[in-house]
Amino acid sequence: MIILGIDPGLAIVGFGVIDKGKYKTEVIDYGVITTPKEDTLPMRLEKIYNGICALIDKYQPEHVALEELFFNTNITTGISVAEARGVILLACIHKKLKLYEYTPLQIKQALTSNGRADKQQVQFMVKAILNLKSIPRPDDAADGLAVALTHSQTNLLLSGTDIH
Amino acid sequence: MIILGIDPGLAIVGFGVIDKGKYKTEVIDYGVITTPKEDTLPMRLEKIYNGICALIDKYQPEHVALEELFFNTNITTGISVAEARGVILLACIHKKLKLYEYTPLQIKQALTSNGRADKQQVQFMVKAILNLKSIPRPDDAADGLAVALTHSQTNLLLSGTDIH
Repeated sequence: MIILGIDPGLAIVGFGVIDKGKYKTEVIDYGVITTPKEDTLPMRLEKIYNGICALIDKYQPEHVALEELFFNTNITTGISVAEARGVILLACIHKKLKLYEYTPLQIKQALTSNGRADKQQVQFMVKAILNLKSIPRPDDAADGLAVALTHSQTNLLLSGTDIH
Repeated sequence: MIILGIDPGLAIVGFGVIDKGKYKTEVIDYGVITTPKEDTLPMRLEKIYNGICALIDKYQPEHVALEELFFNTNITTGISVAEARGVILLACIHKKLKLYEYTPLQIKQALTSNGRADKQQVQFMVKAILNLKSIPRPDDAADGLAVALTHSQTNLLLSGTDIH
């Protein structure tokens, strides 16, 4: 089963594509969609929408897993991430995909069995589980793989939020 | 010039369509797009996207004016409004429209010459300027007309934010 994992953002959207087989899970692709600050907000949102549609067309995932919005103190960043998330969700529903959502806590627990794990521990586990030579860069791409892996390791009926 | 004004939201999106002529400005339509709470978030976002696209197809506006996100204390509501705003912006850019954005303060000043005006004063001015028999209902529809009127009364080159 092909799973597309997405770490939403406005300036940078991380993604990871994995293939969950019966005996092992393999990486297919990972990377980022970036939008320049010089562009207008609608242009940036269109670029994200088109980028997600292109990824879905290319890899034909069965499920999409998103990292849930997590707010720290920066509300302005939070708004722009939410706007980006809106067009990412729209792209997925336009492509008739099932959507699942995981919190940072769920991702940490699924990959490291420790809800308080730091970024490095999560990235190390992404590298180990997928048998990669190095930790995927940038961080956003590793986060995209992490949420895809979380979905692959989680009982779909019990965990995650089926937001489709 | 046909102007579409939009008051973004997830549960309810207000809109107003006006025709700004050389000598007077007339109302063409106003109303709301609503999405039921029982639907999933992606379904609601798709309904908003489709609704905005349908309005643009029907009235062929030259410009779209949006009310800018204003945050009070409810961050959860803010996030869902931002997600809805993302798909509204995407619909407008998919239809190749010019987008303008106005803050609540700019709207109050444009319509009542008083940045501290209350909702009732703004609604009264919407009714008066457009020569309506009664104040448009619901409030969200009146807000859609208010932002369209703000755009029609404002020097496009100096005010509002050209976010296209």
